[in-house]
Amino acid sequence: MQTSSKLVVVGSVAVDWIITPTAERPESVGGAAVFFSMAAAPFVPVSLVGVIGKDFPSAAIADLEQAGVDLAGLERTDGLTFRWKGRYHENMNQRDTLETHLNCFEHFSPKLPEHYQTAEYLFLANIVPSLQLEVLDQMRTRPRLVGLDTMNLWIDIARDDLRKVLARVDVLLINREEAMQLSAEQNLVNAARAIRAMGPKTLVIKQGEYGALCFGPSDDAVFSAPALPLDEVADPTGAGDSFAGGFMGMLAKTGDLSPEGVRKAIIWGSTMASFCVQGFSYDRLRGLAREDIEARYRRFVELSRF
Amino acid sequence: MQTSSKLVVVGSVAVDWIITPTAERPESVGGAAVFFSMAAAPFVPVSLVGVIGKDFPSAAIADLEQAGVDLAGLERTDGLTFRWKGRYHENMNQRDTLETHLNCFEHFSPKLPEHYQTAEYLFLANIVPSLQLEVLDQMRTRPRLVGLDTMNLWIDIARDDLRKVLARVDVLLINREEAMQLSAEQNLVNAARAIRAMGPKTLVIKQGEYGALCFGPSDDAVFSAPALPLDEVADPTGAGDSFAGGFMGMLAKTGDLSPEGVRKAIIWGSTMASFCVQGFSYDRLRGLAREDIEARYRRFVELSRF
Repeated sequence: MQTSSKLVVVGSVAVDWIITPTAERPESVGGAAVFFSMAAAPFVPVSLVGVIGKDFPSAAIADLEQAGVDLAGLERTDGLTFRWKGRYHENMNQRDTLETHLNCFEHFSPKLPEHYQTAEYLFLANIVPSLQLEVLDQMRTRPRLVGLDTMNLWIDIARDDLRKVLARVDVLLINREEAMQLSAEQNLVNAARAIRAMGPKTLVIKQGEYGALCFGPSDDAVFSAPALPLDEVADPTGAGDSFAGGFMGMLAKTGDLSPEGVRKAIIWGSTMASFCVQGFSYDRLRGLAREDIEARYRRFVELSRF
Repeated sequence: MQTSSKLVVVGSVAVDWIITPTAERPESVGGAAVFFSMAAAPFVPVSLVGVIGKDFPSAAIADLEQAGVDLAGLERTDGLTFRWKGRYHENMNQRDTLETHLNCFEHFSPKLPEHYQTAEYLFLANIVPSLQLEVLDQMRTRPRLVGLDTMNLWIDIARDDLRKVLARVDVLLINREEAMQLSAEQNLVNAARAIRAMGPKTLVIKQGEYGALCFGPSDDAVFSAPALPLDEVADPTGAGDSFAGGFMGMLAKTGDLSPEGVRKAIIWGSTMASFCVQGFSYDRLRGLAREDIEARYRRFVELSRF
């Protein structure tokens, strides 16, 4: 019998086609669960739940295994892997989706191996809320901390299910526009108040190159985390998922869910996101030395002290 | 003979017509020099250079005098005051200019009273660069610190003059789009490097609700200052000028131009900007108690510590 998982992530595993103003990569392994896993793996063992097709590169499987990611929950199908094609604008802050092929992801039904079902930490990456509920129902013990991501599409078309998930999670990580849409508020402080009343005691607003804001866990507590200005951004894909990976990974490692522990974990998340965007796919996250990660964290300390 | 001024500001004095999604104020006293002065006055005496017409409210003159602002450099004409009319969008981050009437500001030619000409600190708010040069030429001694603001219009149509001013200033405060435009760079780190090579050793990028970034004074030094999330923003007009006022005011008060002194001054600037936007015109800046300002500063400390 296998040891219980520490940190489980459920989400997309993808092969992306990325076009930036200066480069193009047609077979760029991505997906929220992949970025999350590669960013969390330096901190704790991660157990992944996802689905791939026959076209998924075996080199990526090897990379995940090399990073220590448990793939017992990775379903392998005879179809094709989820594929997304996107083009980034000149300033890299905006992108257009050119193609989306759900492929085997369309009928994905996450099944948690037995040793996943007692994990202390669970991250539900952005998938349809009904599947996020199914995952929660498969947990035999309530995790110490459940994190959630979602997107504008689900806020639009699956709001009822999303509200059911929200009532059962501890931390929601979304962007500013999604927070406004979910709460129907125009002011972020009011939006945070409304969303925290829906369930998650901690709300992390991901703001890309502007860092992150965290509301909670206690009422009226707000934390502003900076983003590190980088002189070269190769590919922003996966930044938010890498942020979540570093964040949840550090929380799982320390077990410190105090307001101070959450603040530090947000900076570790920002640290991993800053590496992610410096390469295509998970290139920069792969094989990062402990010293590199710690040195980058110290740059965040230096960046924000006064 | 009057004592030498400590901090001089040259810029617009205006009567604005402000429309927000929930309120409207047709005679809202504004202008960069006014907001700057009201935000700097709690720290040091400010000497203002500007021009007004017969329509400028005498109550505003009284408010400035009450705040201790030296108006020896305020020219009073028989014409009308500079007027601007604008409407803010639902989320308050965007606005449309509805009307601009330069009036007496059109032929403004700043004349510094004698006691202004040896000021230690000088702020050139956003006016046509040729006038900023004229002001610099009127200084009999080189100030310890010269700060500058400008706008997209001057980057477009008066680039040569602007470059001449830039070569003679210490701190440039602009927004992100202006930094990109001025440097013709798409990446902010590269933009900062290019702009600092034009003259100002310190570049402050004002990012509104995302805070501010400061590059310099030493190479490779970067500081990220948070913005305080506010649950009610009454009128964002003057936020950037109030930021500059608090920033320059605190630098003039302490005289500490070290990297640490500059960082703290940026937070004091953010503090004053956060008050400014909570009311129309300079309503919230007027009569602020020292304790209120210090309590707000401590909220920035709490906001960003980890």
